[in-house]
Amino acid sequence: MTAAIALAGRTRGLTAPNPNVGCIIVRDGRVIGRGWTQAGGRPHAEASAIADAGGDITGATVYATLEPCAHASPRGPACADLLSAAQPARVVIGAGDPDPRTNGKGAERLRAAGIEVTEDIEAAACRASMAGFLTRIATGRPQVTLKLGLSIDGGLAMDDGRSRWITGAAARAHAHVERARHELILVGRGTITADAPKLDVRVAGLESRSPRPVLISSNAAATPAGWLHIASPDQIASLPGDHLMIEGGAGAAAAFLAVDLVDRMLVYRAPVLIGAARTLGDIGLTDLSQAHGRWQMVDMRALGGDRLEIYERRRS
Amino acid sequence: MTAAIALAGRTRGLTAPNPNVGCIIVRDGRVIGRGWTQAGGRPHAEASAIADAGGDITGATVYATLEPCAHASPRGPACADLLSAAQPARVVIGAGDPDPRTNGKGAERLRAAGIEVTEDIEAAACRASMAGFLTRIATGRPQVTLKLGLSIDGGLAMDDGRSRWITGAAARAHAHVERARHELILVGRGTITADAPKLDVRVAGLESRSPRPVLISSNAAATPAGWLHIASPDQIASLPGDHLMIEGGAGAAAAFLAVDLVDRMLVYRAPVLIGAARTLGDIGLTDLSQAHGRWQMVDMRALGGDRLEIYERRRS
Repeated sequence: MTAAIALAGRTRGLTAPNPNVGCIIVRDGRVIGRGWTQAGGRPHAEASAIADAGGDITGATVYATLEPCAHASPRGPACADLLSAAQPARVVIGAGDPDPRTNGKGAERLRAAGIEVTEDIEAAACRASMAGFLTRIATGRPQVTLKLGLSIDGGLAMDDGRSRWITGAAARAHAHVERARHELILVGRGTITADAPKLDVRVAGLESRSPRPVLISSNAAATPAGWLHIASPDQIASLPGDHLMIEGGAGAAAAFLAVDLVDRMLVYRAPVLIGAARTLGDIGLTDLSQAHGRWQMVDMRALGGDRLEIYERRRS
Repeated sequence: MTAAIALAGRTRGLTAPNPNVGCIIVRDGRVIGRGWTQAGGRPHAEASAIADAGGDITGATVYATLEPCAHASPRGPACADLLSAAQPARVVIGAGDPDPRTNGKGAERLRAAGIEVTEDIEAAACRASMAGFLTRIATGRPQVTLKLGLSIDGGLAMDDGRSRWITGAAARAHAHVERARHELILVGRGTITADAPKLDVRVAGLESRSPRPVLISSNAAATPAGWLHIASPDQIASLPGDHLMIEGGAGAAAAFLAVDLVDRMLVYRAPVLIGAARTLGDIGLTDLSQAHGRWQMVDMRALGGDRLEIYERRRS
């Protein structure tokens, strides 16, 4: 299942409105097929893996990170029907599919076809691998990741706005790879004016994965050609794509935090002190007790002399 | 040597102006004596270890974190003379003693007495264990440790000054143990007024290790009874003790950072965002490039839900 999750990562940010799923087919201890949801959402991972296996998966075990879909569409058959016809011995499912058109019906249909089904295997890791899709299903909006480049003392910039550079080359390269995992990248108007940022992915081989830029501003007329526009954070539901990265600046970050619309934070932390720095603005706290219990560090790693701290919003 | 360093830690903050040294004596593969510099600076570690061994260390190996002293004083004989008389087979020395009264003469005297001497064993760790003493010898002032309790976004407090609590109980308990490793604890006048802090060590068994409070203020008349007073950071050389902890507040911290008089930072970091927070004040940076290359993270650990990041000033 871990290998299937890795395959699922290949098209994270390219499959909306479909989930990015991974699938591995094993027979007699050997992998005979590998598949993942293709860019644009079709073919699905299971169809890709069956094709990769040459069509014959009789008696094999299929590992899928998400419950196979039970709903056919004009773009292709339901994976549960494909698998039922192909007659593997067993299907191992990571996470259940909350889409009401599947939601248990996929597993049920496989069992009805005489296939052994095992569910909830590495379910948390599977859900994390398609957090964008699951956030869209649960809340109707994309998963929101806030990127922050900070000093030890929380500085985003010097007090005159200078911020080049706080973090080093390795941290900036990592942030570009993260961009490639998002369909949407958002900045406030101040950031456009101050930095005129190119919001593309400048990593060899990933140039085509540049996300669509979004401006958040009360003034729609300021929107550059080819960009999308929203006037306030609550309009993100209308944006196409399941992964939105907030690139900057401090005002946009605070606006999303104030309405609790950040799911994940990437904090690139440099071992420097700035002092009298420009820091995060008002996020609506009236008491320190409100700050606690919201964020959990889920990962940390060294990036050159800097460190990346990854936090997730705890939601009950 | 690692065990000797651990012994040396027992009286860190209690031996000034003497170094806190650890000593282990081994014969035939067994530890026969353990010693460390006693509170007040005497007896020295070597004398304590020889006494612990019952006086006879003939043919043994002596591990000492610092070169045995070559200078007798009214308070006791030179350790190099004590060891020469006791005739161990070998003395293993961690760090050389930069005190001009010893500085190589200790090792020389041991060799002249026919004892095999090995130097520079775990020297960096030995030096770190007596950084206060070495800072005083090298610069004439105590080692300065800055304690900061920070949010992810660098907040020391909310914008109205409320700071109880950003970090949790485990982090606060750790900070109290750190207090016990310092002779001196410093706050600015604002902190006295706002928090009326008790700067004692509230850890069972360590109550007697509370450091001496120091006020930094232009107004000496504000100094509470029993406290010491300095008007500016450059007056720390006059303070008694080799370890000074800056407890707060933001103004005192910035004043020391601005004149590059902080050697070590303990950053207790809570996984919370504050926003519009009170942060570190001006430390005199005019360009971001000046911020780089100064600090190195040397340790990090979890403390309950918080983390402790330890940084040291890089000095060439």
